[in-house]
Amino acid sequence: MENLRNSVNKMSIKKNVFRPGAQAPRRTTLRQFAPLLVAMVGLPGRGKSLLTKRISRYMNYTGDNTRVYDISEYRRSHMKQYDSHEMFRADNLPAWRIRQQSFREALEDAAAWLQAPNNNVAILDGPNVSRSQRQEIYDLIYTQLGFRVMFIECVCEDPVLLERNFKEILQYSTDYRDMATEEALKDLTLKMTHYKAQYESPTLGSLWELPCPMVKILDGGEGGIIAHGVNGCRESKILAYISTPKNYQQTLYFSRHGESEFNVIGKIGGDAKLSPRGKMYAKALSKHIHALNLPNLQVWTSTLFRTKETAAGINVPQQHLHELDEIWSGECESLTYEELQEHFPKELALRDSEKLKYRYPQGESYVDVMNRLVPILTQLECETNVLTISHQAVLRCVLGYFLETPPDEIPYLHVPLHTIIKITLQGHSYNMETIKMPIECVDTNRAKPLNCSESRTSEDALLTLPKHYDSISNLMQCT
Amino acid sequence: MENLRNSVNKMSIKKNVFRPGAQAPRRTTLRQFAPLLVAMVGLPGRGKSLLTKRISRYMNYTGDNTRVYDISEYRRSHMKQYDSHEMFRADNLPAWRIRQQSFREALEDAAAWLQAPNNNVAILDGPNVSRSQRQEIYDLIYTQLGFRVMFIECVCEDPVLLERNFKEILQYSTDYRDMATEEALKDLTLKMTHYKAQYESPTLGSLWELPCPMVKILDGGEGGIIAHGVNGCRESKILAYISTPKNYQQTLYFSRHGESEFNVIGKIGGDAKLSPRGKMYAKALSKHIHALNLPNLQVWTSTLFRTKETAAGINVPQQHLHELDEIWSGECESLTYEELQEHFPKELALRDSEKLKYRYPQGESYVDVMNRLVPILTQLECETNVLTISHQAVLRCVLGYFLETPPDEIPYLHVPLHTIIKITLQGHSYNMETIKMPIECVDTNRAKPLNCSESRTSEDALLTLPKHYDSISNLMQCT
Repeated sequence: MENLRNSVNKMSIKKNVFRPGAQAPRRTTLRQFAPLLVAMVGLPGRGKSLLTKRISRYMNYTGDNTRVYDISEYRRSHMKQYDSHEMFRADNLPAWRIRQQSFREALEDAAAWLQAPNNNVAILDGPNVSRSQRQEIYDLIYTQLGFRVMFIECVCEDPVLLERNFKEILQYSTDYRDMATEEALKDLTLKMTHYKAQYESPTLGSLWELPCPMVKILDGGEGGIIAHGVNGCRESKILAYISTPKNYQQTLYFSRHGESEFNVIGKIGGDAKLSPRGKMYAKALSKHIHALNLPNLQVWTSTLFRTKETAAGINVPQQHLHELDEIWSGECESLTYEELQEHFPKELALRDSEKLKYRYPQGESYVDVMNRLVPILTQLECETNVLTISHQAVLRCVLGYFLETPPDEIPYLHVPLHTIIKITLQGHSYNMETIKMPIECVDTNRAKPLNCSESRTSEDALLTLPKHYDSISNLMQCT
Repeated sequence: MENLRNSVNKMSIKKNVFRPGAQAPRRTTLRQFAPLLVAMVGLPGRGKSLLTKRISRYMNYTGDNTRVYDISEYRRSHMKQYDSHEMFRADNLPAWRIRQQSFREALEDAAAWLQAPNNNVAILDGPNVSRSQRQEIYDLIYTQLGFRVMFIECVCEDPVLLERNFKEILQYSTDYRDMATEEALKDLTLKMTHYKAQYESPTLGSLWELPCPMVKILDGGEGGIIAHGVNGCRESKILAYISTPKNYQQTLYFSRHGESEFNVIGKIGGDAKLSPRGKMYAKALSKHIHALNLPNLQVWTSTLFRTKETAAGINVPQQHLHELDEIWSGECESLTYEELQEHFPKELALRDSEKLKYRYPQGESYVDVMNRLVPILTQLECETNVLTISHQAVLRCVLGYFLETPPDEIPYLHVPLHTIIKITLQGHSYNMETIKMPIECVDTNRAKPLNCSESRTSEDALLTLPKHYDSISNLMQCT
C-alpha cells in the first residue's frame, strides 16, 4: 500500500472542474448536434474496453472525431506499480481517493477535449459503477457544458464469454504483466468481488436514473440489447454499430487480384483480365488457402473480372460485391500515369497534393471509397475466415480501418500485388502479417512526389512512377 | 357477410408459392448482403403503419430501394366494402380465409419484388399476430429464397398515444371512411378485442421463436427498444432509425435565404450578403414567424452569411449547421451560367443530362448533398416548430425527403426565393403549403433544357435561364 499513499500525498486535490488551459465552455441552448460523451458502465471483464476500442475505430473512420479516455490508465499513472485487488475494496480509503481522482481526471480531460473545435465524441472507459459517478458525469457534461451524454452498460453472464474476457485481461492488462497466471487470476477474481459490492446497476427502461440515453448490451450483443431514450444522430449511429454482435476470434485474409493485363502496361482502372503471371498467382493463392483448411471459409470479391478470375479456383462459397470494386477514376479510367500527366496534368497535381479527398473528374475519391465500404467493414467485423479479394485503393481503405491508419496516410499504404495479407484480432487491436507469394509482378505503388504544384514538369510528376513490366525474363523465371 | 363469401368463392386458391411471371429464386449460400424482408407485428392502432411508412421513406432516400406491402389493402381488394369488426373474429371462418389469403398474397408479392435486381427491402405491414404466420414468413423468405428476415413488434401501452393512434385510424382509414365516428370507434374497439384474442406476442430475448432479428419497440420508441439477434447492415440501419422516437405532431417551416447580391447578378455559390430586397424579406419573415407565436420555436441555418443574415431578426434559439450549406460547386463557384457555358460547356451539358448524380469539378453532386443531410433529416423528424433557413439545392433535397419525391426529380423541385414553406404531418404523409411573401425577387429556377448534348450551342444551353435582375422598378414597388 505504500506506493498508493505516496502518490495520493503527492497529488494536489483540484477544486475547479476545469484545468488551466481548457477552453471556455461551448454553450448552446440547442444541442441536437453538440459533442457527445459516451460513458461505459460495467464490472471488469465484461468487454467494455474492447467495445470502446471498436466504437472509437468505427466513429473515427466514419468521420466523427473520437477519442478514448481510459480511467485505469490515469490510475496507473498515479502508482509506481500495481499492488493487488486490495486497492478496489470499498473500505480502502487512500486507494478509493486515487480511483476517484483518476475518474475525475479522465472525465475532465474528456470534457476539455470535447470543447475543441471538430472533436465529436469522447468515450469514458471505466466501470462507473456508482450512481454518484454517473450523476457527476451528467452534471459536468450535460448541465455545465451543454453537451450530450449517453451511457452504455456491458452486462455479461455467459460463462464462456466471461472466461474468454478474463483470459484476455490476464494476457494483455498492464496490471498483470509481472504476475504469475494463477496469482493474477486469483487477484482478478477478488477485484471483481470488490466491484460487485460497489455496483449500483442502472435500472432498466423508464426507471433509468438520468434523462439521457441508456443502452444495455447483454453478452457482447449475443444476448441482445435494450435501449432507452436514444436520440441524436451519433447516439443512434453507435447503437446501430453495437447492436450487431462482433466476432471475438477473428482472422481475416485479404489479397489484391493477380497481376492484370492493365497492371503490366501501367493503366489504371478498367476491367482487364489477368496477365499470365496473374493467373499463376491465382493458382498459388488457391493452393495456399486450401492448404490452410480454414473452417467455414468464404471468399468475397469485387464484381470486376480480375478479382473473380483470381478467386475462381477457390472452391468455397463466394460473393461478388460492388462495394469492393476499385476506385472509379471517371474520365481517367484506362489511362497510364504518363497519359494522365499528358492530358490531365492539373488533375494529377491536384490528386498528388491531396490524395485522400481528391475526386477524379466524374469519378471517386478515397473518401468516397471509404464511405461505400462501411457496410462491408462492419459486416467483416462479425466474421472470421473470410478471404477478401479486391483492389489496391479499396484494400488500402479496408486495412486503414482495421489498423486505424490516420486517414491522410491511407492512400499511401503499401498493398503489393501477389501478397496475402492476414489480420488477426489480438487483445483490442489487429495484428497484420503478409505472405509474399514467389511470383513476379509489377510494382503499382507510386509514392507521393515531392513536387505537387500544378506548374511542375512532367519529369517531376512522373518521378515516383514504378516501371511497368519488369522484363520478359522475370516472367520466364516463374514458369 | 355476403360480400365476403362471394369474394372468397371468386378467389382461386393458389397451390404454388410463386405466381407466374415471378423470377426464379435468387439463391446464395452467403446471404450477408441479401435482400431483406421486414415483417411488422402488433395489434391495430400500435403505430405500425406510420412506422412502416417512415422506414420506407428513410430507406429509399438513403439508397436502399424499399417497398411496403400492406396486408389490409389486399384484404380490401377482396371486399366490395368494409362490413364490420365481425370479420376479425377468430371463429369467422370465411373472413379468416380472406384474411389469410390477403396475408399470403402480400407476402408473395413482397417476395417476388425482392427477387428483382436492385430491390433491397420489402416491408410487410400487418398484424402478423400468430406464430404460424411468422413461421410462414420465415420459411418462404429465409429458407426457400435465401433472403433475410427481421421482425419489428410495436407494443403500445401509453393511453395518450393509443388515443392518438385511434383518432388517426378513424380519420384516415379507408375502412371507416363512410362510418359515423361513434360507430367507427365502437367497431375499432371490437376489432382490437378480436385481435387480442388471437395475439401470440413474440417472446423476448433468447426465447424468441425464430433465428432472425427481433426488435420490440415500446410506445413508439418513447418507452425504449429491445433488440435481439440483430445483424446485417440494413437491419442495424433500421434499428438505428427506429430507436429514436419521432414526433407525432409535426409542423416544420423552411425558407431559402433572402435574395442575395449573387442571386441578383445570376452567380451561383459564393458567400454573398443579402440584396436590399433580401433584407426586406428577412424582416418580413421574422415578422411573419413571430406572429405565429409557435411554442419552442427554433431556427436552424447554414453557416453561410446569407442564411444567418436572413435569420438574424428572429429572436429564438438558433444553430448554424454546415450540413445545411449550399451545394458546393467547386471550380464553378461564383460563376454565372453564362460564364459556366463559356468556360465549362462540357460540364454544364453533363450536369444538364444527369443533374442528380453530376458532380461539379472538385465540388458536390445532389447525391452528395442528400447524403450529408441524413443526420439533419432524421433529427428534424424528432422535432416540431423548427424553421430551417437554407439554400435552393439543399431545400430541394430536404423537401424531396419529406414529400418522397423520386430522386431524379429532386434537382428540379421548385423552391422559390421569398417563400415560406410549411409542411405538416397528416396521417402517414406530409402535407405542404407555401406562403409567398409580397417582396419581389429574381427567379433562380433553371428548368432542364431540351438539348443536353455536349455539342449544343450556347443559345440552347442558356435557353431556360431566367433573367437575373427584374428591373429597378420592381425593387421600388416593394419599398
